[in-house]
Amino acid sequence: MTDYSTGLAKTEANYQPLTPIQFIARTATVYPNKTSIIYDDLVQSPITYTWAQTYNRCRNLAHGLKKLGINKDDTVAIMAPNTPAMVEAAFGVPMSQAVLCTLNTRLDIGALTFCLQHSEAKVLILDSEFAEHVDLIEETFPHLILIHATDRAFAETKPFGKMSYEQLIEFGGFDSEQAKADFDRSIYPSDEWDAIALNYTSGTTGKPKGVVYHHRGATLNALSNILDWDMPKFNTYLWTLPLFHCNGWCFPWTVAERAGINVCLRQIDANLILKLIAKYNITHYCAAPVVHNMIAAGDEALKQAITHTVNGFVAGAPPSEAMLEKMEAMSFNITHVYGLTEVYGPVTICAEHDEWQQLSVAERASKKSRQGTTSHLMTGFEVLKQGTNEPVAADGTEMGELALKGNMVMKGYLKNPKATEEAFAGGWFRTGDLGVKDADGYIKIMDRLKDIIISGGENISSIEIENILYGLPQVNSCGVVAASNEKWGEVPVAFIEIAEGATLTRDQVIEHCRQNLAKFKVPKHVIFCEIPKTSTGKIQKFELRNAAQSMANEEPKVKH
Amino acid sequence: MTDYSTGLAKTEANYQPLTPIQFIARTATVYPNKTSIIYDDLVQSPITYTWAQTYNRCRNLAHGLKKLGINKDDTVAIMAPNTPAMVEAAFGVPMSQAVLCTLNTRLDIGALTFCLQHSEAKVLILDSEFAEHVDLIEETFPHLILIHATDRAFAETKPFGKMSYEQLIEFGGFDSEQAKADFDRSIYPSDEWDAIALNYTSGTTGKPKGVVYHHRGATLNALSNILDWDMPKFNTYLWTLPLFHCNGWCFPWTVAERAGINVCLRQIDANLILKLIAKYNITHYCAAPVVHNMIAAGDEALKQAITHTVNGFVAGAPPSEAMLEKMEAMSFNITHVYGLTEVYGPVTICAEHDEWQQLSVAERASKKSRQGTTSHLMTGFEVLKQGTNEPVAADGTEMGELALKGNMVMKGYLKNPKATEEAFAGGWFRTGDLGVKDADGYIKIMDRLKDIIISGGENISSIEIENILYGLPQVNSCGVVAASNEKWGEVPVAFIEIAEGATLTRDQVIEHCRQNLAKFKVPKHVIFCEIPKTSTGKIQKFELRNAAQSMANEEPKVKH
Repeated sequence: MTDYSTGLAKTEANYQPLTPIQFIARTATVYPNKTSIIYDDLVQSPITYTWAQTYNRCRNLAHGLKKLGINKDDTVAIMAPNTPAMVEAAFGVPMSQAVLCTLNTRLDIGALTFCLQHSEAKVLILDSEFAEHVDLIEETFPHLILIHATDRAFAETKPFGKMSYEQLIEFGGFDSEQAKADFDRSIYPSDEWDAIALNYTSGTTGKPKGVVYHHRGATLNALSNILDWDMPKFNTYLWTLPLFHCNGWCFPWTVAERAGINVCLRQIDANLILKLIAKYNITHYCAAPVVHNMIAAGDEALKQAITHTVNGFVAGAPPSEAMLEKMEAMSFNITHVYGLTEVYGPVTICAEHDEWQQLSVAERASKKSRQGTTSHLMTGFEVLKQGTNEPVAADGTEMGELALKGNMVMKGYLKNPKATEEAFAGGWFRTGDLGVKDADGYIKIMDRLKDIIISGGENISSIEIENILYGLPQVNSCGVVAASNEKWGEVPVAFIEIAEGATLTRDQVIEHCRQNLAKFKVPKHVIFCEIPKTSTGKIQKFELRNAAQSMANEEPKVKH
Repeated sequence: MTDYSTGLAKTEANYQPLTPIQFIARTATVYPNKTSIIYDDLVQSPITYTWAQTYNRCRNLAHGLKKLGINKDDTVAIMAPNTPAMVEAAFGVPMSQAVLCTLNTRLDIGALTFCLQHSEAKVLILDSEFAEHVDLIEETFPHLILIHATDRAFAETKPFGKMSYEQLIEFGGFDSEQAKADFDRSIYPSDEWDAIALNYTSGTTGKPKGVVYHHRGATLNALSNILDWDMPKFNTYLWTLPLFHCNGWCFPWTVAERAGINVCLRQIDANLILKLIAKYNITHYCAAPVVHNMIAAGDEALKQAITHTVNGFVAGAPPSEAMLEKMEAMSFNITHVYGLTEVYGPVTICAEHDEWQQLSVAERASKKSRQGTTSHLMTGFEVLKQGTNEPVAADGTEMGELALKGNMVMKGYLKNPKATEEAFAGGWFRTGDLGVKDADGYIKIMDRLKDIIISGGENISSIEIENILYGLPQVNSCGVVAASNEKWGEVPVAFIEIAEGATLTRDQVIEHCRQNLAKFKVPKHVIFCEIPKTSTGKIQKFELRNAAQSMANEEPKVKH
């Protein structure tokens, strides 16, 4: 103890737990009449709210949940597309001290059942679009309180559950301004380490794991988004990224802090997106590469109609140089960020440098497709020699495992102390991605640990081959995986989805690869098909691997 | 304990203490070649550093201090104008785990001795400009390690102390890159509640109190500055605000986070400021009203030469409407913020609204001169009925005491648990300022508790009268205080400093007040003199009050 630590304890006056709830409370107070949410399908008239209204609705949601018996650390699940209810849940659920579990809308009933069971959800808010699941859910979880989030787009859906979402908002209303003010004192967490959200991993390698976020991390991630992007107040944010994915990379909290506008949309459609960008002067959006590709392939006239600066974050998979080139041609300002469910979404950024403007488009795209450096409020991003805490050389060659540390790393896995301990072994969260560090300190993924192809004793990066394939304009999307092979150990197999209206032959692909890749990296099989993707646009490599196994030990179609 | 709090403890991987040291570490890594500091007197050639260099120098400073025997929670003091050393100290001192005490450069030797004694400073870095104090300091503090911060502007100053500041930077150098990297692991605090800085109050009402800041508060305040101002990366910040004052309102940390440029200057001179603004495209600066008034009164041609947008924060005293009008005429974008030493500088902001653009300049200035609402990362700003936790009505009329709470409130007063406890009584830090809350929720100071004038049983706000006096273009600065009076209890007395070259008579002043104020508020005495100000531009009302007492019980010169 020194004089600087004596008689200087935390008090209510000088310490408050960090929480994104503070963001909406301040914005609703200072900018009550600014627009908070616009929900527009360009068919019916848009639904809009102000920040005062949104805050009121979130407060009512929290109060309604409490009246339904929800307590601190109960799980409240929601399964909905990017509707206003999803934005409100990001505040209303934690304001009731409960933990928000946003469910992937593409879950099949098996995975959905697993998540509801594992999270012990007490409430499920279910959008009309997923009404097909109601019977089985009610049968499997007789004590689950089901809330029906209705929508004009599904006016014919038969009401289900205990009440509708709008009825819950009404049910949570207050008798007096005093009661409201009293409730407002209860909406903050008692500890910033308290859980705010639960997000299930996609479970490509086994059962999904429940990733727990806390208020401190959510706050800092939301702020880091602002710093990364120099995001000014009153921006207009388009919800192209699923809100169920890492709580929309914390952007509901970011947009509230900035007193910005959430433009919600139910479905991902290139021309709808382009129209909304023009109509609302969208300044910012996030999406996986597949969505950016969709936008880039949208209607030319709609693209021309956009004359203001649009900023996009791309993550979920390394963006191809071809995609970055196309977006640049549209004058969109695209930044590559990188993260995982375990770190609240992106926590690294490929921050650009002035001198990159002197490079060719292709060279610049190559720089920009790297995973880069830490986000502004993240502490550590390193490439560690496997199984050690020792960084690889910054030579762009030595491979190691990407590792992260800092306040934007999850609290841990729910009910899985063993997995949590393993994930944090040595004081780093190890990502399972393999990469190198360039001389400028920027980090680049070479592959997922499990996606690396080892052929004839040589490491082949599946991503390197994919990037070459994307150089063919006819390639809409592609995935390269290993197939076992008696002679070579493994060989690369390319799956290619051809762009609509285009034609491409196997020989053209092989020839293109031969011109751009070392011989041993040229795919040994080329399969044209629709590429299976997760709801977030990630290519489902395990499915490709299964398909590739059928080719195992076939004589390679192309000689070394 | 629930599932959300079991097996989910803080680890090195997912928890790092918040600290502004992180800002410079990241910026030096990501933007090593961006300019960090420019020190320019427009006479000699400017001295400039890059962020890599500044980080290196800060690391050396920390290492040098450790080699001198400095340990965690030792106090390292510095007394210097806004030179590069002051920016470096904001990082280098806490990187050694010591606590930075920046001393007011206008302290007389008595106050200086008090601060060195009370803080138990182990090291004092003293700029050549204050060499006159050396003999007495060495005599009074034989164990204090004195470091001489030399400067080209004082080349003739005889060397003093153990070594020069540049020698200390050299002394703190490293033998190898590995030694540097090892040291880098020791520069972070073990707890974000650890002290980072010690700032003495001006002590207008007794002995100065030592206000302790911690890493968490410094971090959040630095971030809040960015959010308040929508401050983009790579801004250019002019050091018109003393760096010794609340650590320059945390802006050394803010500028480092933004990878911006600190433009340092030794003296506050209107034309020097205007020239630097033009030369370096200064985007942001902070200052007390007195400095803004100086700038507004600067050379016309120099003002015309500034064609880009300049953003200014004004605080330290409520800005007069006249000053805000003048700055608006120069197209400077001025925002009023408010705070005290106890809250790291400003923590409230008079955030502007679009609809204010429709108002007349005077009406808008009246809106803008309010203290407003919480800064982005501050929690509570209220007007409380005196001695209670009950807010006044938001009617613009009911007066109460301004109170603050949140993460940007000090850790407490050093070695003064009683004062700390009193300051935080009831869970609020009570400011001693009196004010009202307008219907839009914005708060306006009416007066310091001790500055209110009670005449004939009526409360008179000295600030209200001062604002009226500032409406006279001949008034350079002014202060209104109470003088005791047998008949009225107290009467207002106006002290006026006339602008250079202007003339103004007592009768003109009285006539102007009669036209703009209720009769009982018209000053009973008008005294023309130079107004005594603190080093931060605050008018020293206690001196005015002493002067006013000489007029006590004189027959008022003006009848009610």
